[in-house]
Amino acid sequence: MAFSYLSHLICPKCNLSYPANKIQQLCTCGSPLLVEYDLERLKLKLKPGDLIRRPPTLWRYQELLPVTSPENIVTLGEGMTPLLPMSRLGKEMGLSRLWMKDEGVIPTGSFKARGAAVGVSKAKELGVSELAMPTNGNAGAAWSLYAARAGLRSSIVMPVAAPAITRAECAVSGGNLNLVNGLISDAGKIVAQAVAESGLYDASTLKEPYRIEGKKTMGLEIAEQMDWKLPDVILYPTGGGVGLIGIYKALQELVTLGWVQEPLPRLVAVQAAGCAPIVKAWQEGKRESEFWPDSVTAAFGINVPKALGDFLVLDAVYNTQGCAIAIEDAELLEEQLTVARLEGAFVCPEGAAAFAAARRLREAGWIHEGETVVVLNTGSGIKYPETVQVEVPVLEPGERLVRRK
Amino acid sequence: MAFSYLSHLICPKCNLSYPANKIQQLCTCGSPLLVEYDLERLKLKLKPGDLIRRPPTLWRYQELLPVTSPENIVTLGEGMTPLLPMSRLGKEMGLSRLWMKDEGVIPTGSFKARGAAVGVSKAKELGVSELAMPTNGNAGAAWSLYAARAGLRSSIVMPVAAPAITRAECAVSGGNLNLVNGLISDAGKIVAQAVAESGLYDASTLKEPYRIEGKKTMGLEIAEQMDWKLPDVILYPTGGGVGLIGIYKALQELVTLGWVQEPLPRLVAVQAAGCAPIVKAWQEGKRESEFWPDSVTAAFGINVPKALGDFLVLDAVYNTQGCAIAIEDAELLEEQLTVARLEGAFVCPEGAAAFAAARRLREAGWIHEGETVVVLNTGSGIKYPETVQVEVPVLEPGERLVRRK
Repeated sequence: MAFSYLSHLICPKCNLSYPANKIQQLCTCGSPLLVEYDLERLKLKLKPGDLIRRPPTLWRYQELLPVTSPENIVTLGEGMTPLLPMSRLGKEMGLSRLWMKDEGVIPTGSFKARGAAVGVSKAKELGVSELAMPTNGNAGAAWSLYAARAGLRSSIVMPVAAPAITRAECAVSGGNLNLVNGLISDAGKIVAQAVAESGLYDASTLKEPYRIEGKKTMGLEIAEQMDWKLPDVILYPTGGGVGLIGIYKALQELVTLGWVQEPLPRLVAVQAAGCAPIVKAWQEGKRESEFWPDSVTAAFGINVPKALGDFLVLDAVYNTQGCAIAIEDAELLEEQLTVARLEGAFVCPEGAAAFAAARRLREAGWIHEGETVVVLNTGSGIKYPETVQVEVPVLEPGERLVRRK
Repeated sequence: MAFSYLSHLICPKCNLSYPANKIQQLCTCGSPLLVEYDLERLKLKLKPGDLIRRPPTLWRYQELLPVTSPENIVTLGEGMTPLLPMSRLGKEMGLSRLWMKDEGVIPTGSFKARGAAVGVSKAKELGVSELAMPTNGNAGAAWSLYAARAGLRSSIVMPVAAPAITRAECAVSGGNLNLVNGLISDAGKIVAQAVAESGLYDASTLKEPYRIEGKKTMGLEIAEQMDWKLPDVILYPTGGGVGLIGIYKALQELVTLGWVQEPLPRLVAVQAAGCAPIVKAWQEGKRESEFWPDSVTAAFGINVPKALGDFLVLDAVYNTQGCAIAIEDAELLEEQLTVARLEGAFVCPEGAAAFAAARRLREAGWIHEGETVVVLNTGSGIKYPETVQVEVPVLEPGERLVRRK
């Protein structure tokens, strides 16, 4: 039995196909490429029960991942993050089946580790020696650290306003970090120029086909952790949207394998009110988004004014009868506190936005009380210390504890 | 079959025993209490293979944990952290079988989550409504967040110099945080006073018996992840030393169960040169340590001038033919960079000290080339952004990527 059932790459826009055994970036039509597997053959060979004895990492889904030789796997033990019941928070929101998929419990502290693990492994398998990418912080941190583990060089460009800790992660990896006085779109132009001039491997969001495959494993894990019974709703904080595209792809693959049944969960793209191009497009019934000018939000990871894969995100939302919703910064920061106080989970602001969206959609009646709802928390709150106000007494040795009323 | 095989509590100093179904703090003789299980009965009922289908959390070892009813479990999905091969680093050190147990991949980003999960669960089971503890940061963060999830109140006292992010974690949890212009020993006195006056549950290191049980699971996991063949050496960054005591206890319990064979791994207590009371005691052949005055180190988590369980740490080291070793700050910070550059792992300074110790003990011939060596990284480097120097170019939009030579 093959290690991977990787077949080829295909363009979702123009249907052109490409071989997967050499470096491919975008389709000639400019669209991202998607990875295809020989699912009909795999269906005969693999059953869900075969997974039970495998290690609790995303590599347990090796047949549905693009790395064809195990020796090319670059891993820090990522995947099989907790799927936690959120009973007290759910009760407060009027949701009796609220769950959090906690992507803070993963190497580098964010879900970006999944894309990096699979993307870097495949880059290594394809013979890449140096990669470059723009980032809002967490992806660059993850890719530079996984590149270090693989022995690859990396060049990372991030906005000066990106979370400070992600700078430290890139720097400690030995990667080549540049900051830019601008947004991720400005960082993207700098990387594009370097790629054009120096022939670096372009690891920008969706400009290589394998990051999606890593992110896809969130969907595979949710399905397995729920014993192959899909939830009714999945809420996902959406910047570049790769996770949402990946989850949708994963669920479709599982349907083809016969491991889960339709209908698929209604997929919800959650954005910040200060950067909501996907929400605007969805409200207008459009298939693509427009560049969002002067974007700003405390949920830095979803400050993406125009996503290359916007049409894939919108497809996923439309095809699952999902929706798109924008949350104000004040509301998501308040939700971050509520989640911590009721559930002990220090979620990132992006994850907090998704919880706030669940609350709002419940209030609006779009989600019903007894529906099974999964919120993606895409990273650990410990990467964003500045989002929490700390005003506490400072004692001298020998003084008495101050207890609040 | 019982959920837990909890039997009773026993004093390792004076052998007095206590029932485990009500709140107990220290023995009347002043020593910490240890938890005993009915291992002879468990030995007949449970085999290693029975664990395979259990979820990848520390609760898979329920029979060896003190919580007797599953409904009292307070969990954020902690445990079964990665055990990773460190091939490139090992090669550089002259170690062909070097592994890292990565406790950064856990809720709250440090191994303190284990003690908090089990300690808070048991406190809840015993009817506690409010706990108090001193901390060097990470333990307070973990306990306040787990307490929030359990619906318990917490009062946490930490030095002003503790990692800033741990303040935010306590604050976001809604716990009652006080800072102190001093060391953890000063925080401890403030908590002791409050406990005496207000009858709070004292969750200070080793003043309740259950934190060790949580930490113990590191030893259980290492054994299971190595397929019940123990490594030759385990290196552990040692402040309060609860993890080392716990690992030693776990391995002894596994020997009694017949799941692993002696000899036990040689246990190495790694300290910072600026706070090395256990190392000094070991060098002098003593059974207890003395208070280390004016302690200071960048590895803040192991800045513990006098540990209540020092005699248990020293017992574990002596009984396994281990050793104790101190590492200078400059050396551990250098090692932190090396680990990241070769392995892509951003370890905490305490974990870096343990890697530096492995390097030194290999150079000294105390560890041999082919021995299996496990280094505990007790937390994620992302909790310590200030340990990494970041000097990078800042570009304006439209400028060109700066690549290092």
